[in-house]
Amino acid sequence: MTSTTYTSRVFPLETMDVPGGTETVLRGGRHLFPLLPRAFAGVRRIGVLGWGPQGRAQARNLRDSLTGSGITVTVGLRPGSASVADARAHGFTEEDGTLGDWLTVAAGSDLVVLLLADAALAAHHQEIFAALRPGAVIGLSHGFLLGHLRATGDDFPAGHGVIAVCPKGMGDSVRRLYEQGAEVNGAGINSSFAVHADPDGRGTDLGLGWSVALGSPYTFRTTLESEYRSDIVGERAILLGAVHGIVESLYGRYRLAGDDAPTAYERSCENITGPIARTISRSGLRAVREGLDAAGREVFDRAYTATYGPARELVAEIYDEVADGTELRSVILAERRLGTRPMSRIGGSPMWAAGERVRARRDGRTLPVEPFTAAVFAATMTAQIDEFAERGHPWSEIVNESVIEAVDSLLPYMHARDVAYMVDNCSRTARLGARRWGPRFQAAYEQIAYPAAELPADQALLTAFAAHPVHQALAAAAKLRPSVDISVA
Amino acid sequence: MTSTTYTSRVFPLETMDVPGGTETVLRGGRHLFPLLPRAFAGVRRIGVLGWGPQGRAQARNLRDSLTGSGITVTVGLRPGSASVADARAHGFTEEDGTLGDWLTVAAGSDLVVLLLADAALAAHHQEIFAALRPGAVIGLSHGFLLGHLRATGDDFPAGHGVIAVCPKGMGDSVRRLYEQGAEVNGAGINSSFAVHADPDGRGTDLGLGWSVALGSPYTFRTTLESEYRSDIVGERAILLGAVHGIVESLYGRYRLAGDDAPTAYERSCENITGPIARTISRSGLRAVREGLDAAGREVFDRAYTATYGPARELVAEIYDEVADGTELRSVILAERRLGTRPMSRIGGSPMWAAGERVRARRDGRTLPVEPFTAAVFAATMTAQIDEFAERGHPWSEIVNESVIEAVDSLLPYMHARDVAYMVDNCSRTARLGARRWGPRFQAAYEQIAYPAAELPADQALLTAFAAHPVHQALAAAAKLRPSVDISVA
Repeated sequence: MTSTTYTSRVFPLETMDVPGGTETVLRGGRHLFPLLPRAFAGVRRIGVLGWGPQGRAQARNLRDSLTGSGITVTVGLRPGSASVADARAHGFTEEDGTLGDWLTVAAGSDLVVLLLADAALAAHHQEIFAALRPGAVIGLSHGFLLGHLRATGDDFPAGHGVIAVCPKGMGDSVRRLYEQGAEVNGAGINSSFAVHADPDGRGTDLGLGWSVALGSPYTFRTTLESEYRSDIVGERAILLGAVHGIVESLYGRYRLAGDDAPTAYERSCENITGPIARTISRSGLRAVREGLDAAGREVFDRAYTATYGPARELVAEIYDEVADGTELRSVILAERRLGTRPMSRIGGSPMWAAGERVRARRDGRTLPVEPFTAAVFAATMTAQIDEFAERGHPWSEIVNESVIEAVDSLLPYMHARDVAYMVDNCSRTARLGARRWGPRFQAAYEQIAYPAAELPADQALLTAFAAHPVHQALAAAAKLRPSVDISVA
Repeated sequence: MTSTTYTSRVFPLETMDVPGGTETVLRGGRHLFPLLPRAFAGVRRIGVLGWGPQGRAQARNLRDSLTGSGITVTVGLRPGSASVADARAHGFTEEDGTLGDWLTVAAGSDLVVLLLADAALAAHHQEIFAALRPGAVIGLSHGFLLGHLRATGDDFPAGHGVIAVCPKGMGDSVRRLYEQGAEVNGAGINSSFAVHADPDGRGTDLGLGWSVALGSPYTFRTTLESEYRSDIVGERAILLGAVHGIVESLYGRYRLAGDDAPTAYERSCENITGPIARTISRSGLRAVREGLDAAGREVFDRAYTATYGPARELVAEIYDEVADGTELRSVILAERRLGTRPMSRIGGSPMWAAGERVRARRDGRTLPVEPFTAAVFAATMTAQIDEFAERGHPWSEIVNESVIEAVDSLLPYMHARDVAYMVDNCSRTARLGARRWGPRFQAAYEQIAYPAAELPADQALLTAFAAHPVHQALAAAAKLRPSVDISVA
């Protein structure tokens, strides 16, 4: 979809080998912070609009990374925003000019980072555009606004740069890993960047600088359109929606097979957030099967091949709806209903009560990988990877949106508490999407995949999994992995 | 949304008391067949395009009812249609001019009834419109084409009447009950009718005549827009999608509580398609609760109030998506995928194997109504009724799309075999919609409603159920009920 090869006037870039070619990437780290003033040339003031999970994390990381650079980070909030107190508590104040009304902040900034909630962005982007000073650059952290502008037949304002830096993890983890990495030069969340409009040629270095300042271990290039699609699809599929469907369906399956509630929880949810996520994070996707004994592999193979097809169909359906704009229209309709009906609760089913008991009895022992569980998870992940590859996404985007964000950023939140703690810490678009699609996956597993797991395994699918190009891409990305695992309280 | 009061130059109309007013309805019956030539004045030839479930049923009913009238019913099929042999086997032949190419039949007919599959209709309606003779009337049996024309910014061709007669049941039941009613003057499926364009004033009597000829026990008036919305929403909710979610979730619940598979099936699916449907059909919605003992009512009350809220939210979401056109876009995207991916299978989960065993051991004994099951079903039905009432649908449409079609037309199919036999005998739009929304209901029941059923009942919701205006509307409709129950092999 885009050339992933580019040059920088500021940062030393690296070439990453990916299936079928290379991608140009920037390895991050605090040793690059001295280069930030050059990357941000022409920017005296960065305005971060919004104090949701991303705004809260990015404003703080940017400020900390730019300390002493002469560049000021200011937070802009809507009049009457409930977040004023929290922003103040984190050191953004009206007194020193680092907290103010969003339109005033937008008018006074050289880089205006739009981290408002999606609905607010949809409602108010025109006012913000109108407030921009000449030459100000618009910054985004996902492609939602692009989708919305297309849906309404609108566009970004001419003459302004439009760049995106999109951390492949929820806002909370962007801050948490940055703090954890303070001593070890650069733990954080990988980010993609996109230069959507670049009237003065500063876009690439501005984007790279912004990403370095967030603490991204590595930064790769994409387009806003590609980012938008993979982001919105991924959160509906393996990142949030599908994994919710996986754990609910597996818990029920194990319970019905005779497990007591905590055991069923350990074999389903705890297994994914624990040993499976850890294995993938450290050793790659293929390793979850390779670690099994012969009997385990036999179970894995049947469950993998039974799951892949139904999961792939659902990912393809989601992709169609996102690319067409239908999914975004549904989100907008859902946002309207939120005025009178609160978002439905997740995490209230019996399995989450069992999870509480399991967490209380954790004792440091390591659960073995459950073959059936691992297969359902790996097959769904591979289905998403294949759909993204078929639709032409760059490999860094594929592995970050399908694998790394899951195991290194999101699942640790479900491990720490429950599905709601993971899903409801994400954007409203993500939260609504997980609620729309999770049940589709659950039903497909229960009604189509699991009955088919009684049949012999499909050797062609297993061969494709064993020889999958994603393993090369993941190995390349692993070389850029931060040295610190996220620690979620 | 529309005046339900109107007059006929041909048929004796009746006034039905409904909550807050009256509706004008036509009680059907074979004694009205002698009036059909007057109702069809100006029509010498009726072209029925398509041989799906509705086309197959309507062409035969129309032909049989119009025998001796001098009006010819001709079936029009696409070149190469696989249905030619079946149409011939049912007496429509090229030799006697009652079977032909669809565009030729369209060009030679005074009333052109469009019963093609939705996707074919979307793709080819312009060719058909172009073929019409001056003054020919366009006939529809649901509002899909209206939705499609709106989505594409198009309209029906000027100068032609556009009427709809919409049987509130699947095509197969339209024929089956007509045959069963041959001896008893008028068993059949209720129909709504709409006059969307009426350049020469014939629309009302033409619609009523068409409906009488199909065997409708009673015919009520609506608009094409109102029909479209209630039809597409209803099949996604209580008629197909929600009831699938109900039986899957209840089966799992009863299994987990210790029931063996056939018992769990009897308490879930068999209970709904058997005693619950029968009770509602004969004695109304309130009767399912009234027939319970005190302990049963206690269970019913908790389950009813726990279910109503989550079910209502989902019906409201579906309604928004249908009214907005989003749902139709999703259907069109799904139709495109069908070229490379077949529609997912339903009816393959373990419960349907249990169902087979239950059907084999049926012995004429009557199962008692299961209070929890009855409550989940009644609450979802009432949620749909309330959403339709709030959106301004006429009461006849509400009770037919929410209650009568379910218990008298559709559930007998699931009773005879399984969910696929019910769902996959409906239109592709319905089949796709049930697959999209059924899992949403299932997850809402399992994750939100059933955990909440442990809490005390909400008396306000129960009072609203007891005093619900729908009971009056159902009682009025029951007076027009055919004397024959459908018999599904």
